[in-house]
Amino acid sequence: MAKNKGVRSYDDDDELSGCNWMEYILVIVLSCLLLLAALVLVIFWSIHYRGGYSWTEDPKRHFNLHPSLMILGFITLSGFSMLLYRISRCCRHIWVKLFHTILHALAVPCIALAALTIYENKNVQDPPQPHFYSLHSWMGFITVGLFGLQFVVGFFSFLVLLCCEGATAACRAAMVPLHASFGLITFMMAIATCLTGITQRVYLTIGDQYGSFPQEAMIINALAMVLIATGVFMAYALKRRDFRYAGRILVSSNDI
Amino acid sequence: MAKNKGVRSYDDDDELSGCNWMEYILVIVLSCLLLLAALVLVIFWSIHYRGGYSWTEDPKRHFNLHPSLMILGFITLSGFSMLLYRISRCCRHIWVKLFHTILHALAVPCIALAALTIYENKNVQDPPQPHFYSLHSWMGFITVGLFGLQFVVGFFSFLVLLCCEGATAACRAAMVPLHASFGLITFMMAIATCLTGITQRVYLTIGDQYGSFPQEAMIINALAMVLIATGVFMAYALKRRDFRYAGRILVSSNDI
Repeated sequence: MAKNKGVRSYDDDDELSGCNWMEYILVIVLSCLLLLAALVLVIFWSIHYRGGYSWTEDPKRHFNLHPSLMILGFITLSGFSMLLYRISRCCRHIWVKLFHTILHALAVPCIALAALTIYENKNVQDPPQPHFYSLHSWMGFITVGLFGLQFVVGFFSFLVLLCCEGATAACRAAMVPLHASFGLITFMMAIATCLTGITQRVYLTIGDQYGSFPQEAMIINALAMVLIATGVFMAYALKRRDFRYAGRILVSSNDI
Repeated sequence: MAKNKGVRSYDDDDELSGCNWMEYILVIVLSCLLLLAALVLVIFWSIHYRGGYSWTEDPKRHFNLHPSLMILGFITLSGFSMLLYRISRCCRHIWVKLFHTILHALAVPCIALAALTIYENKNVQDPPQPHFYSLHSWMGFITVGLFGLQFVVGFFSFLVLLCCEGATAACRAAMVPLHASFGLITFMMAIATCLTGITQRVYLTIGDQYGSFPQEAMIINALAMVLIATGVFMAYALKRRDFRYAGRILVSSNDI
């Protein structure tokens, strides 16, 4: 998409050139693979080592919904949503925003169900476990709050765009860098929360056997390493100025 | 410092203006307070709840050297070193580089002693504990490796600057963005490693009592929250383009 007069953009208008394309494709492909690998590993861990999934009738298997759905919502779906927004180079920006919103909207029920799962799971245990005492739960609370705030602001901004764009263009444009920064902070917080959750889970399930290098612990550590690599590659893909599309239009004359 | 001809810089030359100064000062002051708060909290935790410090004759108190020295080296000293590099506006760039190097050099013995402490601490326990099985240790290994690599590259780059600057200017200039990016990655990895270490320690010391909200656990959670806030503020202070000094010269005609 060529850049038009009357277009406002926060990005530099650098086109990707030469061997930068190779780096760009490599980073995007690796980011996608890592987002999927995290999901595959957590499902594999849950099914192969923790007996799979169930509802509240089996608290141990019921718990497995929590990490799997959290990683699906916070990491895989949110990650693809952010990548899609950054890399889209082929269609009108309003469609990019629509798919960005849809992918995040798909993450909402995953995260809500995952949060509900751990809340119920603690209640159905014998004896019932207290809530919100651990560092992991504090971090999870903040991360869910940030995600919710981001989603509401983004969703209403998108609705406003559809309804009364012109009058709100400056306001929406001013919010874009804030939304992007808090989006990356939320993603990094989600990864850090996963890491504390993984550590906590290892000590609550494998416990003293952790030091004897059981296969399950190595899979869990590998999952954590994939999450860390995801954080690094996603930050690189999202923040590298060269990777931003030259013609990416945040608020165009068409929108106004 | 006015910008001269022949100066190469990777930064935009935006001067801070008006109310941006308030935001700039607020972010820098809060970052400094958080860097100190993390150190104060870990020392308070070690002395007040864990009996203070000792050498190997008392393994429990010996362990306390590990978190305190790691936070001193990886968070407080490295954090101040990076902040100093970003905000310096008053003196020749070679002096900024010198203090940046000195602060990181001060972090080296802290980190080395902290790593040695946990290695020895596991050996002197009864029975001796295995090494490098936990996620925290894997993350620590990577973080120490990144820090070491960054320090060696930065240190030799600084030495080269002092000895034969002209011939290496282009090479050194090309490394600056890489060094800055990996510096921030190392700092974030250090925070994430602290969070997993804190979680691990809570389960190994407080254990089942964690759920009854003991005062010690709340102090530990507060330390983790301070570390998270430090990560957010430091990333903001280091990455915000407006905060970069207009006259900051990476490789000047004087250096060459």
